[in-house]
Amino acid sequence: MAPRRGPPALDPAPALAALDPAAWPTPRVIVDRARLAGNIRRVQDIADRAGLRLRPHAKTHKSVAIARQQVSAGAVGVTVAKPGEAQVFVEAGIPSVLLAYPVVEPFRIDALLEAVRGQGTELLCMADRTEGAIALAAAAARHGMELPVLVKVDVGLGRLGVDPAGPAAVDLAGTIVRAPHLRFGGIMSHAGQAYAAPGRDEVAAIAEEERRTMLAVRDRLLAAGLPVPVVSVGSTPTVLAQRDFGGLTEVRPGNSVFLDGTALRLGIAAAAEVALWVLATVVGHGPRHAIVDAGSKVLSSDLGAHGSGAPGYGWAFPVLGGPPLFVERLSEEHGWLRMDGAPPPVGSRVAVLPNHACPVANLTDLLTLVGGGEPPMDIPVDARGRVR
Amino acid sequence: MAPRRGPPALDPAPALAALDPAAWPTPRVIVDRARLAGNIRRVQDIADRAGLRLRPHAKTHKSVAIARQQVSAGAVGVTVAKPGEAQVFVEAGIPSVLLAYPVVEPFRIDALLEAVRGQGTELLCMADRTEGAIALAAAAARHGMELPVLVKVDVGLGRLGVDPAGPAAVDLAGTIVRAPHLRFGGIMSHAGQAYAAPGRDEVAAIAEEERRTMLAVRDRLLAAGLPVPVVSVGSTPTVLAQRDFGGLTEVRPGNSVFLDGTALRLGIAAAAEVALWVLATVVGHGPRHAIVDAGSKVLSSDLGAHGSGAPGYGWAFPVLGGPPLFVERLSEEHGWLRMDGAPPPVGSRVAVLPNHACPVANLTDLLTLVGGGEPPMDIPVDARGRVR
Repeated sequence: MAPRRGPPALDPAPALAALDPAAWPTPRVIVDRARLAGNIRRVQDIADRAGLRLRPHAKTHKSVAIARQQVSAGAVGVTVAKPGEAQVFVEAGIPSVLLAYPVVEPFRIDALLEAVRGQGTELLCMADRTEGAIALAAAAARHGMELPVLVKVDVGLGRLGVDPAGPAAVDLAGTIVRAPHLRFGGIMSHAGQAYAAPGRDEVAAIAEEERRTMLAVRDRLLAAGLPVPVVSVGSTPTVLAQRDFGGLTEVRPGNSVFLDGTALRLGIAAAAEVALWVLATVVGHGPRHAIVDAGSKVLSSDLGAHGSGAPGYGWAFPVLGGPPLFVERLSEEHGWLRMDGAPPPVGSRVAVLPNHACPVANLTDLLTLVGGGEPPMDIPVDARGRVR
Repeated sequence: MAPRRGPPALDPAPALAALDPAAWPTPRVIVDRARLAGNIRRVQDIADRAGLRLRPHAKTHKSVAIARQQVSAGAVGVTVAKPGEAQVFVEAGIPSVLLAYPVVEPFRIDALLEAVRGQGTELLCMADRTEGAIALAAAAARHGMELPVLVKVDVGLGRLGVDPAGPAAVDLAGTIVRAPHLRFGGIMSHAGQAYAAPGRDEVAAIAEEERRTMLAVRDRLLAAGLPVPVVSVGSTPTVLAQRDFGGLTEVRPGNSVFLDGTALRLGIAAAAEVALWVLATVVGHGPRHAIVDAGSKVLSSDLGAHGSGAPGYGWAFPVLGGPPLFVERLSEEHGWLRMDGAPPPVGSRVAVLPNHACPVANLTDLLTLVGGGEPPMDIPVDARGRVR
């Protein structure tokens, strides 16, 4: 399979050059401190300039240390995808957590609500149907709490959310208002279809369509007498490509903290902004491939977010220099780098740019922070592997 | 994207029917005890009948408890893909471990060799080039040990291994014989190209070609005066499809312990043998999909082993009955089940048959054993997440 595009022109994690990566076992997921800080700052600046609250999606890093950096930079808290993840960040003292996933059974958030009560966290939940509101009300009642609930709107991904064209948003918001122990908190959306866009302009058009859809839903709620304190949208591509945030109150980018091959493909990030890399060792040369010790069990088999497509599994940049090699194929513990010229020598290191950073962080227990004038340090991926 | 085949006709984990899976948080990776025991027995019987040693690849389960079951059934030990994995099984007292991965730097196995010395484990290593033999010799010397080394032969996958047609096997075996602290242990191969075969007959032909290739390499080594104590082949498809094991001494199937959609697609397993399932909850209905809480972070995005292809991401069987639904698409925490008829109700459970069981076990920290007349029990995936 031939790549549809050439390799990105970038210098992978220059911090590596100052270290001795050959002394490290691999595969190892590394995060460049300077780029990480720059990425956290960039979306905070976007939010600050637009007068928005920033609530980064922590599914990308699942790390308490990085969530704290985001909050220190100005984020109101985090977004998470699972009750078990939420609990990790609540117990770590993150002040506000949005569980952006439908809860359809009360017992699934029992432990989380215990933790929320203990920490005094602001917890927001979401629902996109009556069953969800009922489950949240039952759980909140059991713990004697009042939960703010956002109504999820389907802005085109076709996954979850009420139809913005119909009466469902007003109906569900009314159900929430009437339910004991619940408070209608506003509306939220995720334009994940942006990952399938061919480039930045198309992403910006999707973001603008999402904004108009959400404002129309908000206006219908207001017309029905329902105040809408939160209008929250999220996805890294749409946040980075959007020009007009008028009327929105909150953004929830996740991947922007690391970035990856998908962000470069979409044209929404610069090559020198990618903060997460997989350091690997060349362990052999096959007939047509250099083989490295990073396979699908560290890079994942993702071609992109939501199944959007890259032609292969990333690009491998020899740490000692030389042209990048296309990651054409993966076995579980082997990356197959297409040999177009002389391959990097056995024992040498490559830094692999993955297609999708989020599943990579989820596959490792530790992220190694490098650069920034400090020695390398491992931080745990605290919220990975949660059953619930 | 339409599935190329209909759903497999099978009753997913009948043990589930005897439980109350609705009381469990999901996604949860479940293993049926009766099918697990049957799968362990099946390959042991194949090995016993053919007079072979069985050395299952533990990359599939990464679990000490399951490795012990395999050894109790008659396996000589396990195969592993990483030094860190090897260390887990060595420290757990598994008597013999084959590290089936090239070691190209001595420090990478320092901790492992410490553990081997402490436990008195038999450790076998492999090499496919001089650099590997040199690295193993240096590590063995540092620990004052003698390591048996198998020469890896490329039998058609094109990944790693010496060319069986050339002089490389004899040359490398000679290097190993002459190296202090190393002993030439024999030859090994992995016909991973079998995963791309259209069906069982073609898999059997690949297995037979692998056998003939390995015997030819063995004969050349013998003619050069080099005894070949081990002729080891491995892969679940080839072991299950092969009819004649003459001349081989060891087989190393991994996936056979669980089986999955790939094994069914290849026609090498019966539907009622699949032991690993992902239990998930229906959390909503989109315009064209029922959405469950099992996405790529538990199912992986694998279409099959070594990138071999399924049309989607598996099949979801409603636990309360009804036709299976095709898993057409994955987000990180969402499985998109194509709705062909009435969807399973929100809150109900489905058991998902994954394409590839090995990355699924690697994505969870716990496997839940069910059935077999015992209460459900979680066992740890001990060897996942090892950095080295």
